[in-house]
Amino acid sequence: MIQCPRGTRDFLPDEMEKRRFYENRLRHTAQTFGFREIETPIFEDAELFILRSGPNVLKELYAFKDKGDRDIALRPEMTAPAIRMFVNGMSNDPKPIKIFYFGQCFRYERPQSGRYREFFQFGAELIGSATPETDAEVICMAAAMIKELGLKDYKIHIGHIGVLRQAIADAGVPKERTAEVLQKLDKKLYDEARPLLEDMNVDSDTIDSIFTLTETVGGIEVLSKVPGEAGDYLRQVTSYMHAMGVDNFDIDLGVVRGLDYYTGMVFEAEAPALGAEKQICGGGSYTLSELFGGEKVFSTGFAIGFDRILLAIEKEGQVYEPKGIGAYVVPVSDDVRLKSAEIVAMLRSAGISSDIDIMGRKMAKAMKYASSVRAKYAVIVGAKELEEDSVTLRDMATGEQQLVRIGELVAKMQSASQ
Amino acid sequence: MIQCPRGTRDFLPDEMEKRRFYENRLRHTAQTFGFREIETPIFEDAELFILRSGPNVLKELYAFKDKGDRDIALRPEMTAPAIRMFVNGMSNDPKPIKIFYFGQCFRYERPQSGRYREFFQFGAELIGSATPETDAEVICMAAAMIKELGLKDYKIHIGHIGVLRQAIADAGVPKERTAEVLQKLDKKLYDEARPLLEDMNVDSDTIDSIFTLTETVGGIEVLSKVPGEAGDYLRQVTSYMHAMGVDNFDIDLGVVRGLDYYTGMVFEAEAPALGAEKQICGGGSYTLSELFGGEKVFSTGFAIGFDRILLAIEKEGQVYEPKGIGAYVVPVSDDVRLKSAEIVAMLRSAGISSDIDIMGRKMAKAMKYASSVRAKYAVIVGAKELEEDSVTLRDMATGEQQLVRIGELVAKMQSASQ
Repeated sequence: MIQCPRGTRDFLPDEMEKRRFYENRLRHTAQTFGFREIETPIFEDAELFILRSGPNVLKELYAFKDKGDRDIALRPEMTAPAIRMFVNGMSNDPKPIKIFYFGQCFRYERPQSGRYREFFQFGAELIGSATPETDAEVICMAAAMIKELGLKDYKIHIGHIGVLRQAIADAGVPKERTAEVLQKLDKKLYDEARPLLEDMNVDSDTIDSIFTLTETVGGIEVLSKVPGEAGDYLRQVTSYMHAMGVDNFDIDLGVVRGLDYYTGMVFEAEAPALGAEKQICGGGSYTLSELFGGEKVFSTGFAIGFDRILLAIEKEGQVYEPKGIGAYVVPVSDDVRLKSAEIVAMLRSAGISSDIDIMGRKMAKAMKYASSVRAKYAVIVGAKELEEDSVTLRDMATGEQQLVRIGELVAKMQSASQ
Repeated sequence: MIQCPRGTRDFLPDEMEKRRFYENRLRHTAQTFGFREIETPIFEDAELFILRSGPNVLKELYAFKDKGDRDIALRPEMTAPAIRMFVNGMSNDPKPIKIFYFGQCFRYERPQSGRYREFFQFGAELIGSATPETDAEVICMAAAMIKELGLKDYKIHIGHIGVLRQAIADAGVPKERTAEVLQKLDKKLYDEARPLLEDMNVDSDTIDSIFTLTETVGGIEVLSKVPGEAGDYLRQVTSYMHAMGVDNFDIDLGVVRGLDYYTGMVFEAEAPALGAEKQICGGGSYTLSELFGGEKVFSTGFAIGFDRILLAIEKEGQVYEPKGIGAYVVPVSDDVRLKSAEIVAMLRSAGISSDIDIMGRKMAKAMKYASSVRAKYAVIVGAKELEEDSVTLRDMATGEQQLVRIGELVAKMQSASQ
């Protein structure tokens, strides 16, 4: 038997219905915030991702040459494609531009719990604005999405990459080595960061104070410890968030986000239900368009790990119940099959999801199948009842049966489901 | 500037909204017919597609080796993945199994009008049943989908691969060369089919009669010319279709579908609006599961070319109007920004898609932006009106303005949109 490739998944009907349900809730929330959906190709020039993330990204890309000898790669994330699209086709649109996207991304890594080679991301970018309101809007939307999915226990951590960048610059770290240091700090790898900083002649006290900075966590009162403009800026961001009813966050200067292109506010959301791999969302303000040949434009965006957040709500005990169909039509004998087909077509035209026995099954088997597809009603079509233009309507939950005129069938079923 | 790869597309917000609208109509129709959605990976073992379509398919596959040296390929279609999934995970589910899917497929070919290297397919498979009702159900769903999209001019052509197979076998064509002949006939390449058949010692009269068979087209009265069981079978299929209200078809024995695995009824739908490349849908009954290591199971399925059918309705003059947002909130001065943020959050909580100025713009510019995002209302928040807990509600279409108490804002907007 051929299996699906390692790290990928098939989504069977029950699972898929659940995923679409939650996907649509995310989509609805984004639209409520005035964001509009876009879609970019599954693969891109590999160069695009190298420009965004550096050549190291190649190690985990599904990269290959197409038949035209072009280097292409399956997208590992969708911010770079979205910004490429903005540069190519939306750069003259009125600002700010608010877009979101949902789809598959690909990373060649060891599959583990909640991590797949083909995984699903929901993301949004607010392009062309660089104000505290912008950042607040984006964080609040991320919070609204998480809430909309019904996740109970989560926390948003808000930081500012400018604070650490400034501290590192003040310590005498050369600009071209900043990223290297930040990557260690992002992962809290102090044992590796220390020799690195010592190597750049940063003294031990300064190193300690940088480490202390990354451990600065707390309510908005912490902002008094945040030096420079960053503190004022985050204060404004959080007051807008408060006005929009989002208070479930802390200030955490240890949020670094391992990438070079972040410029100011950065944030992450975590779901403790997930244990060690608890991050469900991450983002911040950045500039990226100039790397792809456009003008420099300030943006703020985030991505939600769809697989992870579904895992989190599942671990919290949330259960999705598949809906089932409205009616299953059962012809009692062969001579009523055509009439039964007419009836199922009538129900479908009225928007009632309906199915019909197409295998010539006997009543008991057909009823068993109707249960297996979670039909709300069985519509039993018998020759005798048809003489009176009627059918038997059976409520599958209660087993109650009644004779209903065909002309009244739709109304009967619709009124019952009010 | 980095562009999207040749043959792929970016879908900007207006286009994407339109596509999601039509995609959801297709999805809704499938669900109304009792089909349930599934999803399979973007890539598969290349072997899967070779088993389905023969080694020639490699020429047009995006095939590559992953870092684990596995031969994988981006899916060129979704029937094989769906049946692989059935074999792996659904083979014990109650039959029949009714599934559908929507997503990207990939083919390395010269891009042309309505044909892309990354294209979108909607498809459905009805697995585990081999009756005339099964085939009728599937064709009727295809017809319902086309109709649901609003395409006016289309025609369904129904054939039966058994008729030609029988004629070819009777003419003495060896079984292993049948596919070769059928492929020529599928494309009506009579000039190439003739020498091929002559080479197999088929006499000229028999060749002519085979060609005539492929030119047999007409209403159900043509079925009297269809030899053997196939004629009876199609008569039953079409009477079920008639019962379900679908009469927009002809019988066309020239519908061959170039693939080996079709077993009986085959069908296509065409939209004349598209000119030469007018096929929008194709399918039929087949067995495929045994090729992938499962038991032999009869199925009927079809795929709709989503890009093509959208092109067809566009060519027929159908226009989709993007919806726009419900409200755009404009703070008149900086001192009401926080209160404005509160108001936009209130509107969003009520499910009204709303946006707010986050760039500190003056009134005229903010109004221009509100128009560009097609806001139905502008909610103008001024300090003076706030003293009375009120804001100015401006109908963007008429320009009418009224003072509305904040507590009544949601009700006011909702009642107006009834």
